[in-house]
Amino acid sequence: MADVAAKERRILVAVDEGDESMHALSWCLSNLISENSKDALLLLYVKPPRAVYSTLDGTGYLFSSDIMAAMDRHGYDVAESVLEKAKRMCKDLHDVKVESIIEDGDPRDVICQMTQRLGVDVLVMGSRGYGLIKRAFLGSVSNHCAQNVKCPVLIVKKPKSTVANN
Amino acid sequence: MADVAAKERRILVAVDEGDESMHALSWCLSNLISENSKDALLLLYVKPPRAVYSTLDGTGYLFSSDIMAAMDRHGYDVAESVLEKAKRMCKDLHDVKVESIIEDGDPRDVICQMTQRLGVDVLVMGSRGYGLIKRAFLGSVSNHCAQNVKCPVLIVKKPKSTVANN
Repeated sequence: MADVAAKERRILVAVDEGDESMHALSWCLSNLISENSKDALLLLYVKPPRAVYSTLDGTGYLFSSDIMAAMDRHGYDVAESVLEKAKRMCKDLHDVKVESIIEDGDPRDVICQMTQRLGVDVLVMGSRGYGLIKRAFLGSVSNHCAQNVKCPVLIVKKPKSTVANN
Repeated sequence: MADVAAKERRILVAVDEGDESMHALSWCLSNLISENSKDALLLLYVKPPRAVYSTLDGTGYLFSSDIMAAMDRHGYDVAESVLEKAKRMCKDLHDVKVESIIEDGDPRDVICQMTQRLGVDVLVMGSRGYGLIKRAFLGSVSNHCAQNVKCPVLIVKKPKSTVANN
């Protein structure tokens, strides 16, 4: 059996605004990464395309360019905020290189593409990413990724009884 | 961050005749379990119900009871053989308690039930379990389990270029 601590793996964790993806990151930190690990931890936030927000708001086609620009800025602020929170959870990792990445697009496609492009060894994600409403438009992100990425996929659900630990 | 080695987790690995589930076990041994781990490793083989074999053979309803009994014995022999192979892969685990379990039924339901009944902390499985033909009848086992079990699920695909290491 190999020594877990001696590995240098590339672990991609898909994070979003939901508690579940933070729980998935937390589970990954406790169970997959040891303190002496030399792994690279890649935190990926995918900003869904503007069309998704517009559709959700119902009247997207009426928005002025100012409002659209403000929505875009808001989208980046959310992304930065989520990634900051995720990075704070990784502060005790001494030898692990933590990197945060923001990408635009359909999370299903982008997560699969980035997993391949970055040569990831394992993809970690929650099961209900991108919220109930967005999921109705996007379909289940974790299902899609589990079926389409080539590397191992770890899907972590947040226990209903657990108090958010993030 | 917790110390991976100090944990006492219950890890359920669903194994079958395919190389992919053995690859999933191998990945689990290399990436999820450290040498000093006190984890319990539960190896589960689910023997699909006789109806599946009969249907596959097309003329199942004509079989005599002798043939049916022989098929049942063959099913158990296969189960034992798969579990022996899996246990041999775990021979270097010193402090990990390795247990093998044979259950009958639809693998999708049985794996989900056993995960809950055994208080499993993480379920590990291949993505294409139970062969191409049986899957046509049973549906994708890993999809079903990923959607229905409450604990984290690790789905490990076998890289096409990898030579079987079991």
